[in-house]
Amino acid sequence: MHDILVLTEAELRKNVKLDLNAVAIVENAFRLLATGQVIMPPILSMEIPQEHGEVDVKTAYIPGLEGFAIKVSPGFFDNPKLGLPSLNGLMILFSARTGLVEALLLDNGYLTDVRTAAAGAVAARYLAPSVVETAGVMGAGVQARLQIEAAYLVRPFRRVLVWSRDQTKAEVCAADITKKTGIPAAPASAETTVRESELVITATPAREPILRTEWLHPRLHITAMGSDQYGKNEIAADAVVKADLYVCDDVSQAERLGELRAARAIGFLRNSTPPTLGEIIAARSGRTSDESITICDLTGTGAQDTAIATHAVKLAKLSGAGTVVRS
Amino acid sequence: MHDILVLTEAELRKNVKLDLNAVAIVENAFRLLATGQVIMPPILSMEIPQEHGEVDVKTAYIPGLEGFAIKVSPGFFDNPKLGLPSLNGLMILFSARTGLVEALLLDNGYLTDVRTAAAGAVAARYLAPSVVETAGVMGAGVQARLQIEAAYLVRPFRRVLVWSRDQTKAEVCAADITKKTGIPAAPASAETTVRESELVITATPAREPILRTEWLHPRLHITAMGSDQYGKNEIAADAVVKADLYVCDDVSQAERLGELRAARAIGFLRNSTPPTLGEIIAARSGRTSDESITICDLTGTGAQDTAIATHAVKLAKLSGAGTVVRS
Repeated sequence: MHDILVLTEAELRKNVKLDLNAVAIVENAFRLLATGQVIMPPILSMEIPQEHGEVDVKTAYIPGLEGFAIKVSPGFFDNPKLGLPSLNGLMILFSARTGLVEALLLDNGYLTDVRTAAAGAVAARYLAPSVVETAGVMGAGVQARLQIEAAYLVRPFRRVLVWSRDQTKAEVCAADITKKTGIPAAPASAETTVRESELVITATPAREPILRTEWLHPRLHITAMGSDQYGKNEIAADAVVKADLYVCDDVSQAERLGELRAARAIGFLRNSTPPTLGEIIAARSGRTSDESITICDLTGTGAQDTAIATHAVKLAKLSGAGTVVRS
Repeated sequence: MHDILVLTEAELRKNVKLDLNAVAIVENAFRLLATGQVIMPPILSMEIPQEHGEVDVKTAYIPGLEGFAIKVSPGFFDNPKLGLPSLNGLMILFSARTGLVEALLLDNGYLTDVRTAAAGAVAARYLAPSVVETAGVMGAGVQARLQIEAAYLVRPFRRVLVWSRDQTKAEVCAADITKKTGIPAAPASAETTVRESELVITATPAREPILRTEWLHPRLHITAMGSDQYGKNEIAADAVVKADLYVCDDVSQAERLGELRAARAIGFLRNSTPPTLGEIIAARSGRTSDESITICDLTGTGAQDTAIATHAVKLAKLSGAGTVVRS
């Protein structure tokens, strides 16, 4: 018998914010991932074609943290027809010493949203030009909004451009961004979004590239975070080749699930390994010239989940949030 | 926002029993596993050598069931020094239609104990001689007791022999079995246990065979359920070769984690595939002669977890057990 803390989505939203604390927590997870101390097994993935659904399970053990998380993320893509969100899920925090369940984080994907956006901010901190006047986002979903919000924490830009296949969604997303951050945001074509921004975030489920090579320009950083599954691809493969620096969160994931897959297929880095975001952080390197074109390919790691879950439980305990169950 | 049923170990123990219902539920899961409708991805496994720990995650989608379970099983082998059990964990039941979390089963491994023992009963039902006078068990842990209890549901034997490396543990285990079932049970040597039984269950964490080929005799069924990890091995490889029929729960698991690994290494079924327990059930086949020697190699499947979790939630709802959390 031991105590298990149960936290609902509402409690987690109240306690865990997308702020510089969350960014620092995720940055530290990437650093540890690179310095070879993290144990992160391959993602368990189950597709359920009958239900147009899938489930991913991610985990990672980070030495030094008191717990490790296992995250279960179901995506059932017919849910919107039932008035339900496609993405759901929870995280379970275990004691890293005993393996006992410490907390159940019934976040319905909220913590994933936070840690994913925070990773975008980490990428921007190390790779975006030191001054960003305009930030562009491709996509108009939850992550489009959160990625801009997170990037603004590390690069306080003056203008936002939003592209979406659906013009109305781009308008609503731009309005939401302005409302949340106070920055002028407007819909734009894909080409304008890329050409006029120093920081571009791609946050779409595209399976054919939406970002073309000819739009690249000096003084540009792109964070590609939409691709997280085999077959997804947001950035033209030769744009990856053309960039001065390509960085990813995890090489084995990026070459299966991220932009690296399509780029490798046309010969990019066939016999070498790209640097990871964690290595960039650990080496305090990153962008070497303000004129460079850099790309960061984020597929999402179990290390981020363990970091954010540990952070969330710490904050919840401080505020006395949640329900304790004995089992 | 939706309702999630939280069930503690005590509530699960009260509601879910190792009975013929549980055996039927697990039998049905094996049948569906064989008839090609179940989706069961490879186990996610993370070893944490720093803490002498490991975590396994199993899942399976069984069409026709309302839910699918994900089971997380941590094993931290220094826990007994802290007065804690080595094995823990929980199951999460998701709606098979929407992927929403339906229930959290904080069972600390209890449901795994039940579904594992129930699988032993299914194996005995299809493969043990029709009349079993003596059942033998190698091992003196929780599963040694439960496997005998479960097998007794389908083959009401008259005597039990218990072997363990530790004579005292064998005595305590035999006494517990008698207390629970009323059947005379006594410690015996490994050789006697095998030679005098028509049904033998191996339930040890052995890494070197404990059951020797020369002890095999006509009219014998062996269920090997201890091996569930790479490197474990309970039965001499040539005993597997000598048996008239070898059956496993899942071929890809058995050849990595079960007895099939060592047997394949000496040439057993190098170019063919053994039948699975589910195929035996679906074909209503099994033992063809009372004189045969049969072996069933059980490594534990996600299909069993989904079956027992669904069963447990059904029973808990009938009795009104558990706590509802909205998230």
